Amino acid sequence: MTNDRNINLTMLCDFYELTMGNGYLAAGMADRVTYFDLFFRSVPDGGGFAIAAGLEQVIDYVQDLRFEPEDIAYLRGRGIFSEAFLQYLADFRFTGDIWALPEGTPVFPREPLFIVRAPAIQAQLLETYMLCMVNHESLIATKANRIVRAAKGRTVLEFGSRRAQGGDAAVIGARAAYIGGCAGTACTLTDQLYGVPAGGTMAHAWVQMFDTELDAFRAYCRTYPDSATLLVDTYNTLQSGVPNAIRAFDEILKPLGIRKCGIRLDSGDLAYLSRKARQMLDEAGWTQCTITTSNSLDEYLIQDLIRQGACIDCFGVGERLITAKSEPVFGGVYKLTAVEGPDGSITPKIKISENVGKITNPHFKKLYRFYGRDSGKALADYLCVHDETVDDSKNLVIFDPENTWKQKEVYDFQAKELLVPIFQGGKLVYEKPTLPQIKAYCAQQVDTLWDEVLRFENPHRYYVDLSQKLWDIKNDLLHARS
Amino acid sequence: MTNDRNINLTMLCDFYELTMGNGYLAAGMADRVTYFDLFFRSVPDGGGFAIAAGLEQVIDYVQDLRFEPEDIAYLRGRGIFSEAFLQYLADFRFTGDIWALPEGTPVFPREPLFIVRAPAIQAQLLETYMLCMVNHESLIATKANRIVRAAKGRTVLEFGSRRAQGGDAAVIGARAAYIGGCAGTACTLTDQLYGVPAGGTMAHAWVQMFDTELDAFRAYCRTYPDSATLLVDTYNTLQSGVPNAIRAFDEILKPLGIRKCGIRLDSGDLAYLSRKARQMLDEAGWTQCTITTSNSLDEYLIQDLIRQGACIDCFGVGERLITAKSEPVFGGVYKLTAVEGPDGSITPKIKISENVGKITNPHFKKLYRFYGRDSGKALADYLCVHDETVDDSKNLVIFDPENTWKQKEVYDFQAKELLVPIFQGGKLVYEKPTLPQIKAYCAQQVDTLWDEVLRFENPHRYYVDLSQKLWDIKNDLLHARS
Repeated sequence: MTNDRNINLTMLCDFYELTMGNGYLAAGMADRVTYFDLFFRSVPDGGGFAIAAGLEQVIDYVQDLRFEPEDIAYLRGRGIFSEAFLQYLADFRFTGDIWALPEGTPVFPREPLFIVRAPAIQAQLLETYMLCMVNHESLIATKANRIVRAAKGRTVLEFGSRRAQGGDAAVIGARAAYIGGCAGTACTLTDQLYGVPAGGTMAHAWVQMFDTELDAFRAYCRTYPDSATLLVDTYNTLQSGVPNAIRAFDEILKPLGIRKCGIRLDSGDLAYLSRKARQMLDEAGWTQCTITTSNSLDEYLIQDLIRQGACIDCFGVGERLITAKSEPVFGGVYKLTAVEGPDGSITPKIKISENVGKITNPHFKKLYRFYGRDSGKALADYLCVHDETVDDSKNLVIFDPENTWKQKEVYDFQAKELLVPIFQGGKLVYEKPTLPQIKAYCAQQVDTLWDEVLRFENPHRYYVDLSQKLWDIKNDLLHARS
Repeated sequence: MTNDRNINLTMLCDFYELTMGNGYLAAGMADRVTYFDLFFRSVPDGGGFAIAAGLEQVIDYVQDLRFEPEDIAYLRGRGIFSEAFLQYLADFRFTGDIWALPEGTPVFPREPLFIVRAPAIQAQLLETYMLCMVNHESLIATKANRIVRAAKGRTVLEFGSRRAQGGDAAVIGARAAYIGGCAGTACTLTDQLYGVPAGGTMAHAWVQMFDTELDAFRAYCRTYPDSATLLVDTYNTLQSGVPNAIRAFDEILKPLGIRKCGIRLDSGDLAYLSRKARQMLDEAGWTQCTITTSNSLDEYLIQDLIRQGACIDCFGVGERLITAKSEPVFGGVYKLTAVEGPDGSITPKIKISENVGKITNPHFKKLYRFYGRDSGKALADYLCVHDETVDDSKNLVIFDPENTWKQKEVYDFQAKELLVPIFQGGKLVYEKPTLPQIKAYCAQQVDTLWDEVLRFENPHRYYVDLSQKLWDIKNDLLHARS
């Protein structure tokens, strides 16, 4: 699709959004104002939290929403839509309100990443593309954050375009990886479009193109004396690659007074090879030569390499990051939570399910995060009805919505509303932060989480509690339906 | 990215393709003709074969290759490229040759899906986007084919846009799923762009919007009497959903003489619920009402549902197909295999690795598939040097390239060359088949595989053998380097 230059993303919707829209119009419900939550049910990889991402792409999408004449013609050709509906689509613009968590916010299951308030047809139409963007970018930002934390301060670069699930996954995935903490990417287009620093030096083909490995290394050092990172595993890492790299550095860089350079290992036992290579480089005086590794790395392998004393300065992470290979789905959903009457009154709605985990939190809501005033740490999140306000000058007793006897009193805390207005009456009211700002915000917010929430194995379940009022409404709806 | 309307995909490359290009030019190698193979090393999910896909997107990409002035400006701003190289890029067009397997072809590890012959800078530049498209589409087509085979003739629909890894993954993924055998998709844009039939009826929100479930079903049947598939699990499938569906069918469809309709189950125990629902529908006289299910299905769950006697006519498959969740990476790589001298002589090249699986098959090659003349079944694939020809009027002894004592004599066979010319001298020489033609070709070619290759668990390893001449060349290169 990225090859087609004039794709209208309005049509990137599930067909049922159109059949329902046509039906809402026929049933006289086209203008009924609805509320939808976009939320997810579990954190990938058993993690303690996810990183919200994708808002910028959602904003662009909503601003561009429109049906072109060829779209209307295609839909007419399907033979099931009324002319009134096709006319409605021809005039379509988004006129509703959207609230969202800023990109980079740590987020927990069952809390809204987005709330949409709009006439039924409009709100329904946003579902697929919003989910696609938010699911994908949150997935990759979350995975990147895990990998970066595993690297404990060492550089992590995103190297996965070739294994990404399509062009968007490569380009926008690298954007999300940067939000999650990666220092840069191999993808040129992500740099050009989003300013994520792109870098790269050579493939095995470069080495194979020359008569000898040494010739290949010499030629590279001559062309790029200031940024020579040589790939040393084309033939034999320790017997040929590293010695030839040292020789090329000695011949070309040393006379220029250059001490900075690098090698890259792309196969073999990285723990062993990196230690040996480090020793050889140091003995030859190339102590500032960095060692970059790649080869199907992820957070667990990186932890393990560090534990083994591998001498690695930079991890290039490809397929396991760009596809979030260990769990490649971020299960965000988009569910109706309330309907507004002509008088402005709001009727909460619930979806019940035989899978208990699929039951929704009804109503138009607010989301607070409580930070300890002493520690600065996040203590709990708190979902309440839109007209409630938390007074953080007083202590507050909160309770687990599934096990209500589990209570906790929070005190000396600061309550921060997390959802910010993005669109009001169809108009963008949000000033988009820059990507480095988002990345910095993410790192700073992850720092507000306790180590018990951050750990990979069996993290502490962070509190996401409901206000008494919201819990009562949910309970009443459940009993009325059962 | 899909939001940006004028994306130039030439820049969707790994940065090292540009640093190498600049280096080739500096080293006087810009016009040296190179040969690259695109191949993969193992079949996802432990399967016996993969389905090749993505050629159409590669063709579009190659035809559109060019650097725009803003690309040149961005690259100049990086401060490491020579003006000569930037000028080279400004005039860049693809002038080489490409051979490929037609989309839908069953394919095996280590055989080329594409061969590129082009000047070094050009051939190198194609790497990332070609791999991205071919890896992604082959991944999804392969997974779809598994799921469709598991369904044993029942309809399989692709429902995954919302969980896809970006917009391309949704739209092009649905195209690949169709090649692999899916009957249609929920993605509207894939229908509009590629003609993959899109369908869909209602979400839970439709049901929640009305005062009662019955009202919601009535309204839907009134609007779509000819295609009423009702989602019956919003509140309680057997106590509320199915009885209300039957009542709506009785009230609205029966008087119109309509017998065709459907229900959809999206949660709960699908084996039990589908059997119960079937019974209720049949007893009410709605024997032609189809039952569609969705809810994290894949080939194993579908096999299991069928084994349990589930009464399901149609499977809607979402996240586990569109992300190939169980193994979301198709590990295609792109490796230099030969370099051409000014006199046209071809020097084979090899990449050695401490990971033996990463050693490449050198040289400019041909790929044959041998079909038994009696059975019509595929017997073996055969890689040979470009100037070799197989005479299928005579018996041929082939051998396993890793265990050369494993020999097999093939007889009464037809040898078919699998790689077809796509570009010659930069010109497209391939007539693209339609998508239904590709889908039909895929099904027909999968039929040429023995059941032992088709099975999911421990499939028979299909023979991909090297000619004696190719094996000797590879062996000589290995010994020369070791």
